[in-house]
Amino acid sequence: MSSNVPFSGVVPPVVTPDTPDHQLDVVSFERSINRLIEAGVDGLFFLGSSGEVVFATDERRDQIVREAVRIVNHRVPVLVGIIDTETERVLEHGRRALALGADALVATAPFYALGGPADVEEHFRILHQELDAPLFAYDIPVCVHTKLPWKMLARLGAEGVLAGVKDSSGDDVSFRYLVQENEKNGHPLTLLTGHEIVVDGALLSGADGSVPGLANVEPKGYVRMWKAAQDGNWSEVKREQDRLNEISHIFDVTTGVQGYGAGVGAFKCALNLMGIFDSDQMPRPVKPLDDQNREAIKQVLVANNLL
Amino acid sequence: MSSNVPFSGVVPPVVTPDTPDHQLDVVSFERSINRLIEAGVDGLFFLGSSGEVVFATDERRDQIVREAVRIVNHRVPVLVGIIDTETERVLEHGRRALALGADALVATAPFYALGGPADVEEHFRILHQELDAPLFAYDIPVCVHTKLPWKMLARLGAEGVLAGVKDSSGDDVSFRYLVQENEKNGHPLTLLTGHEIVVDGALLSGADGSVPGLANVEPKGYVRMWKAAQDGNWSEVKREQDRLNEISHIFDVTTGVQGYGAGVGAFKCALNLMGIFDSDQMPRPVKPLDDQNREAIKQVLVANNLL
Amino acid sequence: MSSNVPFSGVVPPVVTPDTPDHQLDVVSFERSINRLIEAGVDGLFFLGSSGEVVFATDERRDQIVREAVRIVNHRVPVLVGIIDTETERVLEHGRRALALGADALVATAPFYALGGPADVEEHFRILHQELDAPLFAYDIPVCVHTKLPWKMLARLGAEGVLAGVKDSSGDDVSFRYLVQENEKNGHPLTLLTGHEIVVDGALLSGADGSVPGLANVEPKGYVRMWKAAQDGNWSEVKREQDRLNEISHIFDVTTGVQGYGAGVGAFKCALNLMGIFDSDQMPRPVKPLDDQNREAIKQVLVANNLL
Amino acid sequence: MSSNVPFSGVVPPVVTPDTPDHQLDVVSFERSINRLIEAGVDGLFFLGSSGEVVFATDERRDQIVREAVRIVNHRVPVLVGIIDTETERVLEHGRRALALGADALVATAPFYALGGPADVEEHFRILHQELDAPLFAYDIPVCVHTKLPWKMLARLGAEGVLAGVKDSSGDDVSFRYLVQENEKNGHPLTLLTGHEIVVDGALLSGADGSVPGLANVEPKGYVRMWKAAQDGNWSEVKREQDRLNEISHIFDVTTGVQGYGAGVGAFKCALNLMGIFDSDQMPRPVKPLDDQNREAIKQVLVANNLL
Repeated sequence: MSSNVPFSGVVPPVVTPDTPDHQLDVVSFERSINRLIEAGVDGLFFLGSSGEVVFATDERRDQIVREAVRIVNHRVPVLVGIIDTETERVLEHGRRALALGADALVATAPFYALGGPADVEEHFRILHQELDAPLFAYDIPVCVHTKLPWKMLARLGAEGVLAGVKDSSGDDVSFRYLVQENEKNGHPLTLLTGHEIVVDGALLSGADGSVPGLANVEPKGYVRMWKAAQDGNWSEVKREQDRLNEISHIFDVTTGVQGYGAGVGAFKCALNLMGIFDSDQMPRPVKPLDDQNREAIKQVLVANNLL
Repeated sequence: MSSNVPFSGVVPPVVTPDTPDHQLDVVSFERSINRLIEAGVDGLFFLGSSGEVVFATDERRDQIVREAVRIVNHRVPVLVGIIDTETERVLEHGRRALALGADALVATAPFYALGGPADVEEHFRILHQELDAPLFAYDIPVCVHTKLPWKMLARLGAEGVLAGVKDSSGDDVSFRYLVQENEKNGHPLTLLTGHEIVVDGALLSGADGSVPGLANVEPKGYVRMWKAAQDGNWSEVKREQDRLNEISHIFDVTTGVQGYGAGVGAFKCALNLMGIFDSDQMPRPVKPLDDQNREAIKQVLVANNLL
Repeated sequence: MSSNVPFSGVVPPVVTPDTPDHQLDVVSFERSINRLIEAGVDGLFFLGSSGEVVFATDERRDQIVREAVRIVNHRVPVLVGIIDTETERVLEHGRRALALGADALVATAPFYALGGPADVEEHFRILHQELDAPLFAYDIPVCVHTKLPWKMLARLGAEGVLAGVKDSSGDDVSFRYLVQENEKNGHPLTLLTGHEIVVDGALLSGADGSVPGLANVEPKGYVRMWKAAQDGNWSEVKREQDRLNEISHIFDVTTGVQGYGAGVGAFKCALNLMGIFDSDQMPRPVKPLDDQNREAIKQVLVANNLL
Repeated sequence: MSSNVPFSGVVPPVVTPDTPDHQLDVVSFERSINRLIEAGVDGLFFLGSSGEVVFATDERRDQIVREAVRIVNHRVPVLVGIIDTETERVLEHGRRALALGADALVATAPFYALGGPADVEEHFRILHQELDAPLFAYDIPVCVHTKLPWKMLARLGAEGVLAGVKDSSGDDVSFRYLVQENEKNGHPLTLLTGHEIVVDGALLSGADGSVPGLANVEPKGYVRMWKAAQDGNWSEVKREQDRLNEISHIFDVTTGVQGYGAGVGAFKCALNLMGIFDSDQMPRPVKPLDDQNREAIKQVLVANNLL
């Protein structure tokens, strides 16, 4: 485990604040980004699943990347999600993100149209050929309904097609095999776990870092955990994860909501309660959490000394 | 069953021809559209799942709609798919399609981000409020991983939010309930089945028509079936469906391909063999069928007197 | 469509009545069976999914078959479900059912352990070799999580391994292909649909009959529909299906229940309200419907003149 | 992490050897059990998913338990799987296993019939009430298609209904929450992971042990890993897991097989090659691995110094 691996460490997927009338809230965005960088994160991932990428028009995507690059101002690397259904559309997002200053690009498997592994592999090969930037594969079957096979990922890493993987597959067995195979290949891939609740186990097994949504709410914990892991202090890694998991109950104290509204809704609610976001507005058609759920989240934050 | 229902009858989802270098093949497009209209179809659905909608950049989508409206030239209604992940993006597609002359719009449930039924309903309500055109709900869980509940569809029809449903859910029980409920509501919704293999049963149960991809290859059969159904000649309806299903084996005589490459790939291969498309090019990252599969499809066409 | 096909026509899956203390209620069982036969059904299927097969111990299964054979007394054929996880267990059930007088056996694909199509095919081949009785394949992926491929079913029919198929797959496209392929093979298989809500379409497409759970509540409608189909009176077939579907809303007027408790629970509740079952007791761990749901079902029955 | 927790440590799910004519191979069974105990395992789990439970008739299940109890002879605790579709059938297996000397029982959620969480909870409550033995919940959604919610498991632990959980869900987030909640409850549940490839992370997070199928092939590695974890030597834990994972490639070097035939088939092949099992016979309808796959597994064993 080494901080020499590019894009390694804590790379939060940045939650995007909206104004009540559904515009990008640039002030809150800047406040949140600065807080993350000051907490010591190693990179920032914009336009991820929790960064409203699929809710944002192309114009809004551009605005988010433009403001992100301006605010970050080279303090940490900027990774940008170029998530869309199929190759030509993803290429367009990639070209625009690079023109606006992205340091690396993050793409999922194609989705909506059904396909097979050969289509997926061809997709990543085309992206690599036509986009001049480090390319991360984003493995998120819960959204795209395709699991990226670890043998394919390892092979594309060895061939230089992929620079890394963000694993949000929930398949820790597959991730573990990928880590071991990548090591045999000389560690060409940067392997980041998106599972904020079990980062400790992923780090023990050899992950190069994490992409934890919960770090939007409590970045310092993930930074401490990463440092403890680099020191080989695994009992401290575990203790920090336990503490973070208590905070993560903002995901399950709510009722009557599900999916994006429950997950990112909880982030926005917490960030609003903590004074980091001026509003908890959600992108259409999703509604913000109601008062009862807001109160439940408040209690979790109070119990964990975040309020 | 009445032809007075708007957008009823045979409404094929038009397959989009590509040139070998991945441009829209306008000549083949015109040839195919004219052939469909001359065969007697009642409407045309562009930018459906099999019309490359999720493969096409916004610019390409505009080009397809523009050429479609020009070629159709008001001979039949033009329905346009405005398929994208979430509300704001779908609204953009809707505004552009209407500006280019679409007669009706077809939208799926939101996808990629996870949500619940309240999000889905809100999505369709916003689309209806902000887009001044008849709106069809496109029920295609195999692509969007959400089944539209028939009670919600019937209610949105009764309230005037939806003008119709294109059902590609494969859930004939749900479709049947929807047909009966819609009848009780005074038939506000036009209900079209997308299941080209069992249109006969759908028509018997009260469907207002079909959206059969296979009609790209053999439109006259679907037109005859629709007329026989209007005449109450059910044995003829069944006989025609049987005949069409023999042709549909172009879907399953191939090997080593799946999903879009197998389905739309078979359409493009057949249309190319029949001289309607100048090429069988597929959109990236999908590859055209190989020679062995092409030969297998050729034999089906020969056996069914289409070559 | 011919009544000469063995086991064709209306073959209800018989719901099994329980006493309040979870014993087989033989009196209610006899009352219900006699009512079904007097309504004109063509066969009876015991120990199907809705006949408590997976809830019943081996001893209880034997008791159900023994009483069924005694009560039916050769008035109609007795089909018995021999549903269990894997081959040796299914063989045991088959031998016991045959010893007790079953006329035909009905088996699903193996379940619980994961496997592939070769395992499924070998399973049916072994059952056929070792059990001397007509064997039906029961295609019910919602329970066993394997879809039986129509090409395999047609082939096993042509080879004499299978005598028929009970299709509860919800995949009408697959069923339609099976019907056509079976016809080409000389009609070796008896093809029954288990989809009580869309029997009309299945009959139009060439099904040999149906296995409708709802016939436990209203057998005469299914018998009339079958006769109308044999007469080619398709508008009458459709009208009867529409009427039956109104009754079927006993499935969806309930709240807070799901799966077996909602489906078979509704049957037992209705049969109890109609005086055919002395109790609506459900097998453990499932609970009977509560008073509010019971009232909702009562209203459906009243509205449809069944109470 | 303490060895005072009952049933904690390494508890392999014992693979059941068959003779070529499908009888229990008692000689190989004894050889394998003795090898496992001599390697230092802390308990043995018979009639698990990989122990042929769903393939075995009741008579065979009894034979397996009888021989297991005899061979183990109180050297380690004997856990027995009582896996069947619904409550009454599971209760029967439980009574028989206890009469034959089982020390603890392991039951899954009900399967085949669809239900909801209330049914699942009632199921475990009935099992606890009527079976006088420590009861483990076996969370294996890939087989039963129901995920046991961690909040329910924690609650049933706190109430004394469950003695432990064997987690084969692949949902490490859920497992992690369960571990933390169980700790808050005073550690009433013994929490074992069934994921042999990521035991290291599970132990770090607080698991009480593992149920690794791969320990049938290489038990000493899992025993060493467990001891290292108790010593807090996490780099050693990770190193041992890495080594075991290399051996686990016996699962993926094969071609043309899937599910049980690939997984347990690989175990039996390896044990046969290593001279522990006299045959690699599989239960019907599954076939043993062919010569090519056998050779591939042999190479993995040689490369890892097991041959």
